Amino acid sequence: MKVSIIGASGYGGLELIRLLTHHPHFHLESLHTSSMAGVPIGAESNHLAHLPYILEEIDPEKIAKTADIVFLATPTGISKELAPSFHDLGVKLIDLSGDLRLKKTGEYEKWYKGASAPAKILNEAVYGLSEWNQKEIEKASVIANPGCYPTATLLGLAPLFMEGLAITSDIIVDAKSGVSGAGKSPTAVTHFSDMNDNFKIYKVHQHQHIPEIEQQLGEWAGEIDPVSFNTHLVPMTRGIMATMYVKLKRKTTTHELLDLYKTAYENQPFVRIQPEAHFPCTKQVYGSNFCDIGVAFDERTNKATIVSVIDNLMKGAAGQAVQNANILIGADPSAGLMQAPLYP
Amino acid sequence: MKVSIIGASGYGGLELIRLLTHHPHFHLESLHTSSMAGVPIGAESNHLAHLPYILEEIDPEKIAKTADIVFLATPTGISKELAPSFHDLGVKLIDLSGDLRLKKTGEYEKWYKGASAPAKILNEAVYGLSEWNQKEIEKASVIANPGCYPTATLLGLAPLFMEGLAITSDIIVDAKSGVSGAGKSPTAVTHFSDMNDNFKIYKVHQHQHIPEIEQQLGEWAGEIDPVSFNTHLVPMTRGIMATMYVKLKRKTTTHELLDLYKTAYENQPFVRIQPEAHFPCTKQVYGSNFCDIGVAFDERTNKATIVSVIDNLMKGAAGQAVQNANILIGADPSAGLMQAPLYP
Amino acid sequence: MKVSIIGASGYGGLELIRLLTHHPHFHLESLHTSSMAGVPIGAESNHLAHLPYILEEIDPEKIAKTADIVFLATPTGISKELAPSFHDLGVKLIDLSGDLRLKKTGEYEKWYKGASAPAKILNEAVYGLSEWNQKEIEKASVIANPGCYPTATLLGLAPLFMEGLAITSDIIVDAKSGVSGAGKSPTAVTHFSDMNDNFKIYKVHQHQHIPEIEQQLGEWAGEIDPVSFNTHLVPMTRGIMATMYVKLKRKTTTHELLDLYKTAYENQPFVRIQPEAHFPCTKQVYGSNFCDIGVAFDERTNKATIVSVIDNLMKGAAGQAVQNANILIGADPSAGLMQAPLYP
Amino acid sequence: MKVSIIGASGYGGLELIRLLTHHPHFHLESLHTSSMAGVPIGAESNHLAHLPYILEEIDPEKIAKTADIVFLATPTGISKELAPSFHDLGVKLIDLSGDLRLKKTGEYEKWYKGASAPAKILNEAVYGLSEWNQKEIEKASVIANPGCYPTATLLGLAPLFMEGLAITSDIIVDAKSGVSGAGKSPTAVTHFSDMNDNFKIYKVHQHQHIPEIEQQLGEWAGEIDPVSFNTHLVPMTRGIMATMYVKLKRKTTTHELLDLYKTAYENQPFVRIQPEAHFPCTKQVYGSNFCDIGVAFDERTNKATIVSVIDNLMKGAAGQAVQNANILIGADPSAGLMQAPLYP
Repeated sequence: MKVSIIGASGYGGLELIRLLTHHPHFHLESLHTSSMAGVPIGAESNHLAHLPYILEEIDPEKIAKTADIVFLATPTGISKELAPSFHDLGVKLIDLSGDLRLKKTGEYEKWYKGASAPAKILNEAVYGLSEWNQKEIEKASVIANPGCYPTATLLGLAPLFMEGLAITSDIIVDAKSGVSGAGKSPTAVTHFSDMNDNFKIYKVHQHQHIPEIEQQLGEWAGEIDPVSFNTHLVPMTRGIMATMYVKLKRKTTTHELLDLYKTAYENQPFVRIQPEAHFPCTKQVYGSNFCDIGVAFDERTNKATIVSVIDNLMKGAAGQAVQNANILIGADPSAGLMQAPLYP
Repeated sequence: MKVSIIGASGYGGLELIRLLTHHPHFHLESLHTSSMAGVPIGAESNHLAHLPYILEEIDPEKIAKTADIVFLATPTGISKELAPSFHDLGVKLIDLSGDLRLKKTGEYEKWYKGASAPAKILNEAVYGLSEWNQKEIEKASVIANPGCYPTATLLGLAPLFMEGLAITSDIIVDAKSGVSGAGKSPTAVTHFSDMNDNFKIYKVHQHQHIPEIEQQLGEWAGEIDPVSFNTHLVPMTRGIMATMYVKLKRKTTTHELLDLYKTAYENQPFVRIQPEAHFPCTKQVYGSNFCDIGVAFDERTNKATIVSVIDNLMKGAAGQAVQNANILIGADPSAGLMQAPLYP
Repeated sequence: MKVSIIGASGYGGLELIRLLTHHPHFHLESLHTSSMAGVPIGAESNHLAHLPYILEEIDPEKIAKTADIVFLATPTGISKELAPSFHDLGVKLIDLSGDLRLKKTGEYEKWYKGASAPAKILNEAVYGLSEWNQKEIEKASVIANPGCYPTATLLGLAPLFMEGLAITSDIIVDAKSGVSGAGKSPTAVTHFSDMNDNFKIYKVHQHQHIPEIEQQLGEWAGEIDPVSFNTHLVPMTRGIMATMYVKLKRKTTTHELLDLYKTAYENQPFVRIQPEAHFPCTKQVYGSNFCDIGVAFDERTNKATIVSVIDNLMKGAAGQAVQNANILIGADPSAGLMQAPLYP
Repeated sequence: MKVSIIGASGYGGLELIRLLTHHPHFHLESLHTSSMAGVPIGAESNHLAHLPYILEEIDPEKIAKTADIVFLATPTGISKELAPSFHDLGVKLIDLSGDLRLKKTGEYEKWYKGASAPAKILNEAVYGLSEWNQKEIEKASVIANPGCYPTATLLGLAPLFMEGLAITSDIIVDAKSGVSGAGKSPTAVTHFSDMNDNFKIYKVHQHQHIPEIEQQLGEWAGEIDPVSFNTHLVPMTRGIMATMYVKLKRKTTTHELLDLYKTAYENQPFVRIQPEAHFPCTKQVYGSNFCDIGVAFDERTNKATIVSVIDNLMKGAAGQAVQNANILIGADPSAGLMQAPLYP
């Protein structure tokens, strides 16, 4: 299968290149950007100096002639413009941006402050939470790849919701991310001297991943109260941890919760449940597609603490996108993705 | 006033040295450690090579002859042994450890896994949350300096409790700390190659600062449900952020909350309330005694998010200890402590 | 003495504010910037939220009415425009930029790629290497505050040159700096995700501090061959280490070299010579005005290795500027500058 | 081919596991440690929780029955004990420690402070600098895998030596390493709070890699003066940069030097020469087996600056070991090693 990447020079695009140049089923056909056509990828990104690709401009008609699947690693706001063209040309699409995720009218406008994608493409788009939507992904022509925070959050909460154990009010998700989640453009917030040895909170009550999380939880639970969700920047490059506080419908034990989680993910190669009394750190998934989850029931408060970690650029972006591409072509979801995390 | 530091070579002790060698009212008389008597402080800690002190052994009788106030910067478990001797010798004490903070029988044993300090010294000990216990601190002979997490948490929650606005159930405190909070002894958890570019959660549901927080909140509120409190390690040296989620007894606005906070702290030199829609980062208090607080009311969830940051070694340890010493001698609480944070 | 800071919102300016708001002899009268007049300093830089200053525009005539000394913490290229006006108005000047340092015609043009300052002001400017030019600084009306790299380098080499022990060819200075040396403006080089966990070399053979170093060494030695000088960026905020390799005119020992260094700096409060077999790290001077120096003679190669560390924003910029201001007014050079480094 | 790793739980061993579980030619048969036999590798190292291996004890006779090649990732001092047994049992050996590298009598004793390996095994051992000793490696039964610093240094200097262009006196190698080079055991030097935001120099004039570098340079040049070599710790996990200063026998240009380097490495997949005026940073090889080299001729000093970067755990240890294993079995040296660096 031939694949092309649009937005190849961003962090998501670069990570896709890393994965797709060593993939057993996909051939990386071409790389595209809006602004640096003609530049060798190795000149733009020195770590890729051994690769022969030249960045090309974004010409859907031309790309459609050689690519079976296109990855849109473009910023939010761009995908919604490009997706319909590719879709009309019969190319399968995996969009890593937030443009195609929100289904409910008005939600995109409210949280992303702009016009949403056309209804036609939105209706086609399948939410690509690989572990839980596999059946739909297999038949999709357009995949809305989940956001980084929603991936960590939803994989962490899913077993409680599937079991009907979670009380759907008063859910608290306190999320922390490495700085690469803020993208490649230098800003005052991501300036090294300011961000180093610093811990920041941002977009308090306002992160655009809130409706995405609530949409999926709502689908699972029927209905759900608004979720308290805050995001922080950690002085590290990669990694997300979501620390989640959930009231349960009945008393339980950590042991019982762990059994529930292990059963829920027993056939999933990328979700690793921690042993009792152990909790994951972000480094143990660094550079990999794993999502590691730790669980404990707090007998004092009758709440469960769920701790979920991913690499935001892998399971939270490019890794899950390739996992979805694998599912799309009927391959093993883990094809080309089982590299061990880079440690230390 | 002459002061001495016991446990001078730990991180809390070193920070006390930094503050007390340039203090308008205190003369730093001597430094003491259990294991390195005879070693110049500058040999033990190169950054202090310009200071003339030689570390001395811990001999309460001898120390009592020259010191008016003693700072115990010893580890938890040591202070409870030393405090009674100094107290009997008539020396005023400021204990930075957790040994003298918990009043309720059985709490220390449960959370610290050891025998508590003698009742007599515990009854003497005043909880040194400077901004809220000033009257008692003024008259104290023994001060239990608050823990780092409790300081950030309690200063952040106090105005809501004083106003009676907080619902005292379902309080969530998600706390993050720089690694210096783990002390000076090398461990696998604090090994650079493991901790760098990593974010960890630890002591889930089990941090010994939980009862300290609940004890003070309980005093303010009369009664309080157990608090959900989790702690994380951030790959940075200094700084604590507590992100707190609190249900309120009535609808309110961010503006109204901010007024409440500004009023509560208007005469306090070290608590700085952020403007509306702004939230503090840990670096803005780096190396200083400030506690910066941001507040927002979330209309979607009807909860308040309170964000409180301190430098764990300053306002969370040595800085507040000196602030308490100032109060103890009737000086301006801010004497010798108004240095600006180190930025960047 | 009343002082004002021009360029108050840059890293050098912010550090001057930190030092001058707690100085025994100087009163910080006003803060000036080119672009943010009217903004409270605490809104521009949150860590200074407790200070009452409002940023003002740069009006030399107005400033000259209230300020006895002006610190120019403006970028290179701006100082040369401002300095003559202040000088003509009779204000004493301390310029932290590179504009007034190079005396030889053509050097500034070659290394800084622009027209040099007017000859008149250049002739007035005294090079403010505090430890070695104190006599001239005392009488100066304009001080060219040394660059960060030259400070670390020259303090490290001076005793060898004073003693006539250094061979003045084949000197190698391999210098490393924290990222704050690159200033406050976000760039691709200083973007956190790129700079974190990274070590970079930059301006190979081309750093503008080369002629400044050679000018001073040449003054001391009469003549000197070009110095090999390279600069690197370390993923940390503050600190410079210069590792220097120098051939000596005769065989010697580490012990003898250390005696030479200790004697050279015995009356200097800010230069601390390490004991034999010990070498400084940058953190031991963090946030302070110290320059710590380690020395070893390599019997295998007959070269000396000199290791010199400073905080680039302190001894390498604002700290030395205040030290020079102290000298200028006849005060103790260390007034207001003896704070211990921040450790850890 | 079946392979086993001795010392599997150290940083070198863990990196070998990462590479050998996804290698086209090798099957990773077993993992061995001295102290944790019986523990699942995923319990010892959480990032490998998806792997089924149980750590086993080190029993050469038993290992020799199933392994064709053994990787010794044991600390220096252990390999010399183990290597003879494996060799006698007919197993091919790749030793990542320093035990088998130094040929000259007395050198090991002098620099490593202990008895050297037996002469018999030393005589067998081929120095595994893959790019330059390929012919000998192909026929070897024992490979002494180069040290991390020597790899970066020698790959950077080789073209100058091969061409006979370098003057072999006054060579300066100023080397910097990430902290993982110091291994997995927590120490005061590698304690996060001390190492973070810090830059250190260590083993001044005394690093045990000096004789290894001089031995190889001497082989290339016939004779060589002692090299000035110093090592520093950078607050990052992985990466080495060697900044080298070399006098040349004649005037040249950067352009000519680059041609020389490009020619020298034109058939080597892992050495990437930077374009003129560009220099590598460590991050551009992070997690990969590349060695990136930048070169410039300094017309002012008539010296060349050579900048060489590697990932110390990859090209500086496990990656080069696998490259050597590839060569040993007659496979493409790059088999299983062409993953792109992890960026950012």
